[in-house]
Amino acid sequence: MTADGRWLAAAAALAGRARPLSRPNPGVAAIIVKDGKVIARGWTQPGGRPHAEAVALAAAGEASRGATLYVTLEPCAHQSARGPACADLVAASGLARVVVGCLDPDPRTSGAGMARIAAAGIACTHKASPACAESLSGYLARQSSNRPEVTLKLALSLDGCIAMASGESQWITGDEARAHCHAMRARHDAILVGGGTMREDRPRLDVRVPGLESRSPERWVLTRNAAPEGWRALPSARDLSPMDGVQYLFVEGGAGAAAAFLAAGHVDRLMIYRAPILIGGGRPGLADIGLATLAAAHGQWQFTVRTQLGSDTLEVYRRCEPSR
Amino acid sequence: MTADGRWLAAAAALAGRARPLSRPNPGVAAIIVKDGKVIARGWTQPGGRPHAEAVALAAAGEASRGATLYVTLEPCAHQSARGPACADLVAASGLARVVVGCLDPDPRTSGAGMARIAAAGIACTHKASPACAESLSGYLARQSSNRPEVTLKLALSLDGCIAMASGESQWITGDEARAHCHAMRARHDAILVGGGTMREDRPRLDVRVPGLESRSPERWVLTRNAAPEGWRALPSARDLSPMDGVQYLFVEGGAGAAAAFLAAGHVDRLMIYRAPILIGGGRPGLADIGLATLAAAHGQWQFTVRTQLGSDTLEVYRRCEPSR
Repeated sequence: MTADGRWLAAAAALAGRARPLSRPNPGVAAIIVKDGKVIARGWTQPGGRPHAEAVALAAAGEASRGATLYVTLEPCAHQSARGPACADLVAASGLARVVVGCLDPDPRTSGAGMARIAAAGIACTHKASPACAESLSGYLARQSSNRPEVTLKLALSLDGCIAMASGESQWITGDEARAHCHAMRARHDAILVGGGTMREDRPRLDVRVPGLESRSPERWVLTRNAAPEGWRALPSARDLSPMDGVQYLFVEGGAGAAAAFLAAGHVDRLMIYRAPILIGGGRPGLADIGLATLAAAHGQWQFTVRTQLGSDTLEVYRRCEPSR
Repeated sequence: MTADGRWLAAAAALAGRARPLSRPNPGVAAIIVKDGKVIARGWTQPGGRPHAEAVALAAAGEASRGATLYVTLEPCAHQSARGPACADLVAASGLARVVVGCLDPDPRTSGAGMARIAAAGIACTHKASPACAESLSGYLARQSSNRPEVTLKLALSLDGCIAMASGESQWITGDEARAHCHAMRARHDAILVGGGTMREDRPRLDVRVPGLESRSPERWVLTRNAAPEGWRALPSARDLSPMDGVQYLFVEGGAGAAAAFLAAGHVDRLMIYRAPILIGGGRPGLADIGLATLAAAHGQWQFTVRTQLGSDTLEVYRRCEPSR
C-alpha cells in the first residue's frame, strides 16, 4: 500500500466514530497531515453537521497551510442551509494537497467538489481506497440502490439451527458473541426482526453495552400488520423504500425474515455467529430462499474475516459483485 | 516441547504410514536416533507384522548399539505365533535408551514391555506424548471401549443443509474438499452410511485418489435389513460389537445415521466440511439426537483445527472428555 493509501485507511478507521449518528449524511472522516504527522482530524458529527473537513480544518487553523488533507469522501460542493460547502472551505484553506478516498456519487457533488478545489490551485487527487469505500458502504448503497446496506446476522449451531425443536433458543452463542452483537447494533441505523420472532421473543433489540445504550437504533418488524408501539412495520423485504434515509440495516432473523431478505436479493453481508454445539432436528436458521438449483447457490458469498469470540466463531461474508 | 517430545512427535507423524493397514495391530512407528540423527525407522507393516521396532532394529543393525529408540507405543511383551515379542528384540539390541510415547493398555503388555527392557539394563522411560496418543486413537478406543474410534463427517452449507429440499445434493462442497474426504477414507478401516443414503445415493465410498484406490475401506450400512453385496449391515449405532477389530470408523451420513451415532454417544470426532453457500429450507445435516435442553448441548465439542480447502473450510472438533 502506498503512503497515501495508508493515510486514507487511517481516515477510514476514524470514520467508524461517525457511524451511524451522522445520518442522514455520510459518516466521513478527514485527517490533516504535515511533515509526516497528523496535525488535525475530524469526522461527521451527530445529525450530519459539521462535516468532517470543517471539523479538521477548524482544529488545524493556520497550521493547515501547506499541509495535506486526507478525506474518505469527496468534499461536498453544494451549499446547504445547514452549513457551507466543504469544497469552498478546503479551497480557502491554504492546504497544499487533498487526497480523496471515494468520489461522491451524489450528483450535486460528483466531481464538482474536486474540480472546485483544483480550481483554487490545490493539488487534488482521487486514490480509490477499499477501506474508505467499506467505511461508507451504507451511504454508497443508498446512493447506488436507494436502499440501506443490509447485514444479515445468524446465530447458529454447527448444524445450522437457531433453536431446539421445542423453540428453546437461549442461548446458542455465549456471552462474548452476544456482547459483540450488541456492539454491532450500535453501528446500525435500524434493526429488523420477522413477525414470528417479534411475537415469540418480544426482543428488546437495544444496545446493552455500557456507554452505548443511547445508540440503540430504530426498530423495525417485517409484517403486513401494524407494528407495536416503538416499532415500525416493513410490509415486504422486496421493497425497502419505507426505510427512507436508513444507511445501515441489521437483520436479526428469524428464519423467515432472513429468507425473505435473501430471496429479494437484499442482503449485502452475512455475519454468522457459530457456536460449537450440535442441536439435531432443531429449527433451521433459514427458510426457503427460492433457490432453483444447487449450482445457483455457489459463487454468491465471499468470505472476508473470522473472529474468535470465546468458544464461538464469527464469520463475515460479503455478497460477490454480480458479473456485469 | 522437550527434545524427547519432539522425537516422539516425529515418530507419531511417521505412524500415519501404518494406518489403517496395520489392523488388527496398532499402527506404531519407531525411530532410532544416534548423535542427534535418525539412523533407522520403521512402522507396523500391512496386516500387523513385522512390528515397527523390528523393522527399525533390522534397518539399524549393529548401529543401534548405544542409540536411543523412540517408539509411539510400549513394545509388546507377548510372544505370538506371528513373531517375537518386541520387548525381547529391544532387550537384546544393545540400545542405550528407549523412550515410549504411550503405555500399552493391552494387559499382556501393559508395563511388562517396559519392565523387560529395563531388566536388560536399558534406560526405559515413558514420556506421555499427545501426538503419539492421537496417532493411536483408534487402537486406544478399541482397548478402552471395545469399539472403533468414530469420526463423523458432515458436508454442510453455511445454514447446515446437506441437500436442497428436492434432494439435490451434488455438490455442496468443491473439488478440494471432496478430494480431502477421499484421502480421509484411506485413513479409516471402515466407512458407514445410513440406510436412506444407501438407497438414494448408492454411494461407492471408494477412495478415488491416485495410488490409494487399493486402500478403500470396509463398507458398512446402518440397517436392520440385509446389506447389499459388498457391504456389511450394522443393525444399531448403539452396539458397535459387529465391527470387530475395526479401529477407525468414518461415518459419512446421512442425517439419520449421524444422529443415531451422536445419540448413542459414539462419535469421537467431527469433521465438518463447510461450503460458503446458503441453501435455505433444505435438508438438515442432522436429525434428532435426543437433546433434552440447550444447556446440555454446550461443552461437548472442542475445536481442534481448521483447514482451508479451496473456498470450503474443514473444521475438526473432538469430543470433550467427560468430567469424571
